[in-house]
Amino acid sequence: MTDGPSIKTVRALSEKYSNWGRWGSDDQVGTLNHIRPEDVVAAAQLVRKGRIVEMGLPIDDAGPQSGGGGFGRFNPIHLMIRDGADVVAGTTIRDFYGGEDKYLRGADDVLIMPLQSGTQWDALAHIFFEGKMYNGVEAMMVGSKGALVNDVTSGCGRMIGRGVLLDVPAAKGVPWLEPGYAVTNADLEACEERQNVTVGRGDFVFVRTGQMAQVRDRGSWGDYAGGSAPGLGLDAVPWVAEREIAALATDTWGMEVRPNETPDTNQPLHIVFIVHMGLWVGEIFDLEPIAVACEEEQRWEFMFSGPPLPITRAVGSPLTPLAIF
Amino acid sequence: MTDGPSIKTVRALSEKYSNWGRWGSDDQVGTLNHIRPEDVVAAAQLVRKGRIVEMGLPIDDAGPQSGGGGFGRFNPIHLMIRDGADVVAGTTIRDFYGGEDKYLRGADDVLIMPLQSGTQWDALAHIFFEGKMYNGVEAMMVGSKGALVNDVTSGCGRMIGRGVLLDVPAAKGVPWLEPGYAVTNADLEACEERQNVTVGRGDFVFVRTGQMAQVRDRGSWGDYAGGSAPGLGLDAVPWVAEREIAALATDTWGMEVRPNETPDTNQPLHIVFIVHMGLWVGEIFDLEPIAVACEEEQRWEFMFSGPPLPITRAVGSPLTPLAIF
Amino acid sequence: MTDGPSIKTVRALSEKYSNWGRWGSDDQVGTLNHIRPEDVVAAAQLVRKGRIVEMGLPIDDAGPQSGGGGFGRFNPIHLMIRDGADVVAGTTIRDFYGGEDKYLRGADDVLIMPLQSGTQWDALAHIFFEGKMYNGVEAMMVGSKGALVNDVTSGCGRMIGRGVLLDVPAAKGVPWLEPGYAVTNADLEACEERQNVTVGRGDFVFVRTGQMAQVRDRGSWGDYAGGSAPGLGLDAVPWVAEREIAALATDTWGMEVRPNETPDTNQPLHIVFIVHMGLWVGEIFDLEPIAVACEEEQRWEFMFSGPPLPITRAVGSPLTPLAIF
Amino acid sequence: MTDGPSIKTVRALSEKYSNWGRWGSDDQVGTLNHIRPEDVVAAAQLVRKGRIVEMGLPIDDAGPQSGGGGFGRFNPIHLMIRDGADVVAGTTIRDFYGGEDKYLRGADDVLIMPLQSGTQWDALAHIFFEGKMYNGVEAMMVGSKGALVNDVTSGCGRMIGRGVLLDVPAAKGVPWLEPGYAVTNADLEACEERQNVTVGRGDFVFVRTGQMAQVRDRGSWGDYAGGSAPGLGLDAVPWVAEREIAALATDTWGMEVRPNETPDTNQPLHIVFIVHMGLWVGEIFDLEPIAVACEEEQRWEFMFSGPPLPITRAVGSPLTPLAIF
Repeated sequence: MTDGPSIKTVRALSEKYSNWGRWGSDDQVGTLNHIRPEDVVAAAQLVRKGRIVEMGLPIDDAGPQSGGGGFGRFNPIHLMIRDGADVVAGTTIRDFYGGEDKYLRGADDVLIMPLQSGTQWDALAHIFFEGKMYNGVEAMMVGSKGALVNDVTSGCGRMIGRGVLLDVPAAKGVPWLEPGYAVTNADLEACEERQNVTVGRGDFVFVRTGQMAQVRDRGSWGDYAGGSAPGLGLDAVPWVAEREIAALATDTWGMEVRPNETPDTNQPLHIVFIVHMGLWVGEIFDLEPIAVACEEEQRWEFMFSGPPLPITRAVGSPLTPLAIF
Repeated sequence: MTDGPSIKTVRALSEKYSNWGRWGSDDQVGTLNHIRPEDVVAAAQLVRKGRIVEMGLPIDDAGPQSGGGGFGRFNPIHLMIRDGADVVAGTTIRDFYGGEDKYLRGADDVLIMPLQSGTQWDALAHIFFEGKMYNGVEAMMVGSKGALVNDVTSGCGRMIGRGVLLDVPAAKGVPWLEPGYAVTNADLEACEERQNVTVGRGDFVFVRTGQMAQVRDRGSWGDYAGGSAPGLGLDAVPWVAEREIAALATDTWGMEVRPNETPDTNQPLHIVFIVHMGLWVGEIFDLEPIAVACEEEQRWEFMFSGPPLPITRAVGSPLTPLAIF
Repeated sequence: MTDGPSIKTVRALSEKYSNWGRWGSDDQVGTLNHIRPEDVVAAAQLVRKGRIVEMGLPIDDAGPQSGGGGFGRFNPIHLMIRDGADVVAGTTIRDFYGGEDKYLRGADDVLIMPLQSGTQWDALAHIFFEGKMYNGVEAMMVGSKGALVNDVTSGCGRMIGRGVLLDVPAAKGVPWLEPGYAVTNADLEACEERQNVTVGRGDFVFVRTGQMAQVRDRGSWGDYAGGSAPGLGLDAVPWVAEREIAALATDTWGMEVRPNETPDTNQPLHIVFIVHMGLWVGEIFDLEPIAVACEEEQRWEFMFSGPPLPITRAVGSPLTPLAIF
Repeated sequence: MTDGPSIKTVRALSEKYSNWGRWGSDDQVGTLNHIRPEDVVAAAQLVRKGRIVEMGLPIDDAGPQSGGGGFGRFNPIHLMIRDGADVVAGTTIRDFYGGEDKYLRGADDVLIMPLQSGTQWDALAHIFFEGKMYNGVEAMMVGSKGALVNDVTSGCGRMIGRGVLLDVPAAKGVPWLEPGYAVTNADLEACEERQNVTVGRGDFVFVRTGQMAQVRDRGSWGDYAGGSAPGLGLDAVPWVAEREIAALATDTWGMEVRPNETPDTNQPLHIVFIVHMGLWVGEIFDLEPIAVACEEEQRWEFMFSGPPLPITRAVGSPLTPLAIF
């Protein structure tokens, strides 16, 4: 009799692939350290056509959050401070310029959003395991005032490099992976083979599961946020760790397969990747347009630009991820 | 007797440099149309060292908004939904996982921010003149629900190109331009000459006034938001228009000189640039680090990546502007 | 052939019962003018037992808003600025007191809520008809900066008086009225008769439909917000107008029967009551506990205290409505 | 040599006047238990004229918060979801009703506010001392999800009773008490004598310092929020405790004198009153109008109605406090 995956598996993988201390005891950058200046230069060399493809969802109230949910995540709320209707109604000058009309009219707005509500980078301070986050930093470094260590800003100046799309459903000849499907090492290698690309040190890797295609096919988000989903499985951990990639993003809510393979452990790859490897994980990317573009270009590598916003002490951030061919 | 600058000047410049209809009656992209695919390719060729420089302010409560003010802009508010203190206190599982402990712990957060509160792109729907915005679109297209036309999302996939810093105080041998100083055509050309660079079609142009250096020198934002400031003057309008640049950003609150040169017209360049030219204007960029980097590199051109967030119907957006050498 | 109810009906009722000008051209108080000081004194005389009953819903994320919806109303969002977990984790002093421990610890919080999301008073500036709101004030008096006239604050010092519950399902011997049921004049009079109470000038009238009991019975809000509902019908308008009541509140989302009786007119009673009569309308009150209490006390009148919050320029407000026996 | 006030004093007072366990180990109501039903009846008998006086500040961006500050409290932010300008501009139907015009037009709004930003009740979960809050409850009961115990909702159905204003500057013949002045037991008794009123069990006591008059006199809030202030001193603690009052509110930011009398202890009365006595403390009440009214009426007692909003798990709440003569 053999045991199935469990916290023991998670601990073993965490120990084996831990990057704590690898880049110094003060490091807050994690796997973005894998990117070297020459990688940035090489990535720029991939720009041969001047084609730009967006890889993120719009930020609005049609987002994937379905209300309620464990963490109180909601879709972004956008409100106008002043707008063109005020201009038409003649209220702008009265309300915003103290009654003095000097020809100018303007519109302003406000956004209220959970930083994990849509296309996002998880900061290294987003996940804890047994009281610690990446690089052994105590959880108490993230109080109600936010993350004093490992916040999302350490990624801002480093999110430029080679992007590689691994289109798993394309390699398998299906429109999308079904919820519950765990992407394996073999799946990733099959993508590399089909796409004639080899993922390596410093790459930004985008693993398409096609779940967003499925959402669009059925016309509703359903339980996309927090429900069953395809995603990376435990079998793929060595591949992710050993390739020394800079960051990993998927088109699902939680990057890894759900239900998780470990009955006793919630989101085991988050524990291995974010806490122990210091891997930058992206979620809810919209990889449908880039999948189409890669097929059209017949190449699955591109220059990637996708920094988080420099939100001080934040544990996540929206972004505008761009692929540049 | 000659008249000083007035709304007549603004109307004349607007008429002369209007791009309404230039790229079709449905165009919402404005001067970003100046960028051609080959410009993106050429911009990528400027990446020779792999050095990345951030050109934005942190997003936090230490920002430039000083409370009150005409438009109710406030500094960003960042709040935690759950955090590491919950982990230490042992409340995470109870409050966010229904009491079931499966090892994982996490932190989430929320951001509330006026989209014009810090480093930002103005959308083309940000400014109106006599009831219309860019391309002749009626102001009523921006109601309380936001901008149905000319919102900030049209810039998302087009904010990659050659960036050029024009360091005006450096050209003039001063640490910063004083508030009220109007940058002229000659100033801009002097920068080009000193820096051995010529601004042209499709460029992202960053005009440093040094006001942020002055703010740091005095240790307070003071009236940075809405007060007197150095900035572009009417004399610089033809240069900006005729060079066919893609976008223009400065390190000040309002891009143009304040007090304005036109006693009867508020922010005249906003009317010419945004409404009539469809020029993408950036404000509150932090151009101090890039000024240092350009001196070090002895080149003032670089690959620029700085898309807005894809906030549906928004009239502005924060961003993480990056210069890549 | 006779015509059914239509905008003609609404216009006729509006004209007949209009209070525009009745209390002066500057009046912003509307039907609260019906309350005289002696009514307040008399209402206080109804306090004979010292029993206090709450008539509002809790303000939290379990509220009736179901996401989406036409107006972007969402359930209240409550976030902690600092909390007890910070105290346990030892982060309070570090993060909020500059490191100086002087024994005190505290918790603070923030609320984000649409003012129409739960138990609420509609301000007289909440509804417009043909460009005007109560007392003939132009709609332009409510720009993006809020209501310069007829805001909710005019009710703050006047929401004390006699409260009367009219328990329609009790009078009809049913647990609740079904969605689509239009409460008639006869229904209201039957309540008065059964309850041995006569509604009159200056009363705060609470009409129970029992819809909240139905919601609880089925265990979900369903389409409570914006869907079909029991509520006042056109037939009840004269009763409401002629009794000269101060305010009217119900336990439904929209006070009046839905679908509306007027196929061409949305929420016709809002037009008659709020715009033309200046009637203060309350919605989403929880009338279940007060219904029980009235049966127990065998009286359906009580002292009512329920002012809105003094939110400057607001068009609605949450409140804590109290019945005092 | 004698020691001045210190944490020892605070501990002694806390021990002497602790109400932990007094009303049961599960009690979350604290001193509101002092109110008996007959007190509510008696309070209603004070309503003899039908005059209503508001005792709170408007809720808006002109509030006392001055930005920054230790806790990130800001003045309330009020934004329109839809408004009358949309009506005038003709955008309401397009944007909020799917294009179908059925005559109705409306305005909606949103409020964002720290619950401690203006006129407020502190919940018993607002303050902790040595890891515990009122009734010995562990601080961990207030995580990032809010207060599971001692939240503000327990006060909602109990905030009706006799109100008594103690006008200290009036008794002393000055327009206001100066910042740093500690109100003594003798001051409170002098008020009672001058006003011919005796504070007793179950009363809602409002201590006017006049600081808001001073603020208005100088035309700015200055350091009202968090700076020096008049307020209750340690000498007044026995009076407050032994009178068995229901609640205590003042017109200052922090209720007690600042700088505090205890150099080693921040806000010592908060520790004694809120944590140990379970006293409901109100702050930033506007006691100027009620002071005028009391003089006019020549009585300083009235019916008080001032429940918090029923915000689930909140540690404070705005309110509309009313005095009814």
